[in-house]
Order: sequence, then C-alpha cells, then structure tokens
Amino acid sequence: MTQLIFRSATRADVPEILALLEDDAIHRSRQQVVAERDDAACWAAFEAIDADPRNELIVAEDAGTVVGTCQLTFIPSLSRRGAERMTIEAVRVRTDLRGHGIGKAMMRWALDRARERGCGLAQLTTDKRRTDAHRFYAGLGFTASHEGMKLAL
Amino acid sequence: MTQLIFRSATRADVPEILALLEDDAIHRSRQQVVAERDDAACWAAFEAIDADPRNELIVAEDAGTVVGTCQLTFIPSLSRRGAERMTIEAVRVRTDLRGHGIGKAMMRWALDRARERGCGLAQLTTDKRRTDAHRFYAGLGFTASHEGMKLAL
Repeated sequence: MTQLIFRSATRADVPEILALLEDDAIHRSRQQVVAERDDAACWAAFEAIDADPRNELIVAEDAGTVVGTCQLTFIPSLSRRGAERMTIEAVRVRTDLRGHGIGKAMMRWALDRARERGCGLAQLTTDKRRTDAHRFYAGLGFTASHEGMKLAL
Repeated sequence: MTQLIFRSATRADVPEILALLEDDAIHRSRQQVVAERDDAACWAAFEAIDADPRNELIVAEDAGTVVGTCQLTFIPSLSRRGAERMTIEAVRVRTDLRGHGIGKAMMRWALDRARERGCGLAQLTTDKRRTDAHRFYAGLGFTASHEGMKLAL
C-alpha cells in the first residue's frame, strides 16, 4: 500500500464497486435466488445516492485503484436528543488485500465523518455467518446489542 | 379502537411522538446516560425528516389520538439489484394499548408502503433484551439473520 485515500465515489467507480459487492460468498448465495444484476437499476441507485445529501457512497483508493467501499446514510431522528444516526452498509475490502488494515482505516474515517456531522450513534448490521466481521467491528468499539432483522419483499 | 389511520406526522404530533419514545424502559436507561432531551434538536430533526423524501415519520391514529409511531427510511443501494431498502426505526405503540394489533397493523402498512416504492428489503434492529419484539417481528416474516451493532459517538 502506498497511501489510502477515502472519498465519495464517482460514476467511473461504479463498475469497481459492483465488482467488490459481488466478490462475496454471501452475496453470491443471495444472487442465485434474486437473479442477475439489473444494470439500469444500479445506475439509477448511484444517481440517487450521489444526489442525496444524506447518502454517501465511499471508496478507499490506493494508488489510483479502488480497494474498498462502504455506504453511509445519515438518518435524522427524534430519539437520542434529536441527533442524526449514521448507518453503514455494504462494507467491502478487496479479497486479496484483506488483513492489511484497509477496512479498519475506512471504518475509522467513516466514524470521524459521523462525528464531524454531530451524529450520536453509528450502526450497522452484519450477517450472523460473518464471525470475522463481528470481531472486526467489536475491535472498533461496536457492541452487538441488537438483533438485525430482515424481510425480503 | 374505532378505525386506525396511518399517516405522516405533522408538527402537531411531535409532543405525542416524543412521549411515546420516552415511555420505554430501555429508552429511559439510555437517557440517564445521555442527559435530558434537547427540544431544539428534536424540532430540527422533525423538520429534517419532514423535508426529506427518503424519510417518513409515521403515526397511527385512533379517533384523533396518536397511539403508535415509527420512522421509515428508504435507502438507495447498489446491492440487491439496485433496489431501495426500507429501514424501520423507533417503533412504538402506546403502552396501555399493546396487545390489540396496533403494532402489527402499523408494520403491515409500512411493509405495503415499501412494496409500493419497489423496495427489495425491509430491515430493522431491535434490542436483544426485547424478546417480545423479536417474536412480534418473526410473526411478520422477519428473520434475525444479522447482528445489529451499535457504537455511541
């Protein structure tokens, strides 16, 4: 690694982000059920995120290459003294570059981003099968205090 | 109950919503740590939600009285074929009216709202101590497939 840069994704990053999202065993098991990727919907989703001041699609870049990604959503809330909460989704680091601290640096950057905005809470859900991820997030200070419940529509 | 109505909250509903959020043992245990409610921040949060097309603060109303609330956030995503996901937060039913199906009707209404928008997934986190809530959401079809991890900032 030379020097990691964290920044908002541009249209040009989308193919690399999609490749990161798809290079994952759990994602693949889901895709077999829900069929192939819908490119038009993915582009529309990128445009929606890009135009929304409460959504940020982030990439970690190393020497001009995308090596990680995550999506941050800032949710205004009446709970917790009216502070925003940051939800983190779709966290990925390139498979061949894991264990080099990219994920940790990206999450720390994201948490700093949340503090800058005055968020009172950061939250995420992680599949119960991802035991490595649970340790990773616990190491960053996250507590597995909640059940993460999902319903496919 | 006469007839439940579900609708977006107005400014006039905010005091009743705050009362519902605060009438909760887990919420109270948290408030002891984070100090008293900040009214200005709560009003600002309401205005932010009200102006945001991807956030909806919902109330359940029975004969002119607010009997339940929840907040819906529609998150655009590159995952799951580019479909939005709906996150549900701050679900409450008035304590003295629990067990009458208000929560179930409100959640079904919220899930229909998500289907209308074309969401691919509904998700929520619920404190591991709320075992009644886990059964309630499982009865609606939710699966506790994920760890819900939180970090106070």
